[in-house]
Amino acid sequence: IGSNSAETDGQTEWTDVQKKMIPWKSSSPSLDLEMVFQDRAAKLGKSNSRLIVVASLIDKPTNLGGLCRTSEIFGASALVVGNLHYIQDKQFQHLSVSAEQWLPLVEVKPSQLVDYLQQKKTEGYTIIGVEQTAKSFDLTEYCFPEKSLLLLGNEHEGIPANLIHHLDVCVEIPQQGIIRSLNVHVSGALLIWEYTRQQVIKQKQQK
Amino acid sequence: IGSNSAETDGQTEWTDVQKKMIPWKSSSPSLDLEMVFQDRAAKLGKSNSRLIVVASLIDKPTNLGGLCRTSEIFGASALVVGNLHYIQDKQFQHLSVSAEQWLPLVEVKPSQLVDYLQQKKTEGYTIIGVEQTAKSFDLTEYCFPEKSLLLLGNEHEGIPANLIHHLDVCVEIPQQGIIRSLNVHVSGALLIWEYTRQQVIKQKQQK
Repeated sequence: IGSNSAETDGQTEWTDVQKKMIPWKSSSPSLDLEMVFQDRAAKLGKSNSRLIVVASLIDKPTNLGGLCRTSEIFGASALVVGNLHYIQDKQFQHLSVSAEQWLPLVEVKPSQLVDYLQQKKTEGYTIIGVEQTAKSFDLTEYCFPEKSLLLLGNEHEGIPANLIHHLDVCVEIPQQGIIRSLNVHVSGALLIWEYTRQQVIKQKQQK
Repeated sequence: IGSNSAETDGQTEWTDVQKKMIPWKSSSPSLDLEMVFQDRAAKLGKSNSRLIVVASLIDKPTNLGGLCRTSEIFGASALVVGNLHYIQDKQFQHLSVSAEQWLPLVEVKPSQLVDYLQQKKTEGYTIIGVEQTAKSFDLTEYCFPEKSLLLLGNEHEGIPANLIHHLDVCVEIPQQGIIRSLNVHVSGALLIWEYTRQQVIKQKQQK
């Protein structure tokens, strides 16, 4: 009882897994990064998820910290942020409850995003924008590929038009309220959950 | 583009719907409350959802404000809080982005919860605790009844043992991370989403 919604910082007994913070460069072979993920998953005895959450466009440390916590809990393979300095922010740390110690963080600045997304495409990832557009899929109808990359929008401007062109697909969350929209951490959490739920169901069907 | 993750306060053109804040008393006929919900749903042209989100055990204004926003966006019929004074808190308001003006808020103090849950049972609601217990259903396997009441736990203590006995069922979110658990607003958001998703699919199947 009680552990499902505990807010206190989690101290764990894992000590052999190092904090991984990786500034991404388009020239570096990303095979290294894949090996880091697989190595970590093996050490933690976790499923080797192929979900990458890209939060480079997000400005608020609270949203980034929350996404870090949620991404770690659902076993995302990495969280991509616009600047690794965010993790020293007190608000980030308050919300992340130390999840940044267990989830690989990759730094991709907004100006590097086009190159980064292109490279991930060549590695077989489907680039999914979380955004309302005329062509967006409804989240209740979208089937996530195993190798999914979620691009989350900025708190105020969403995903800029020049990046929309580089996406494979946009997915939107059907919303019926009067107020404008979900918080970006919650939007991200719902897509991370939906990806996870579909993967769980697929794995059960294969057994 | 951009509206899916906007953080700014939403000003809307709806002016004919009054703010509804209802202190609940176990002696008062809750038919009145049902009428308020239906009246509001009709005025807003919204689906008449039968989802009640009970956040009386939650202490943090940020979590309550976030839940208010998320509950409103998915058209929950009411958000139940432990004290209506929370909505004057600046942190609540910052996170709720004025959603409290469009979502009926009901005050049920923690000491009144047993009576409140009992009354909702007699009205046909299934009382669902969001909690990890030995008998909890996995969220990937639980099918929500149309009349669902979600009871969320306290940030530190979850749902106290004396209340667990009054639940019809517990549902837990499968979590594979190293850190302890999801934030209570995120946990609540995932169950609200899952309820909504199932209702959307049911409605499509009926057409």
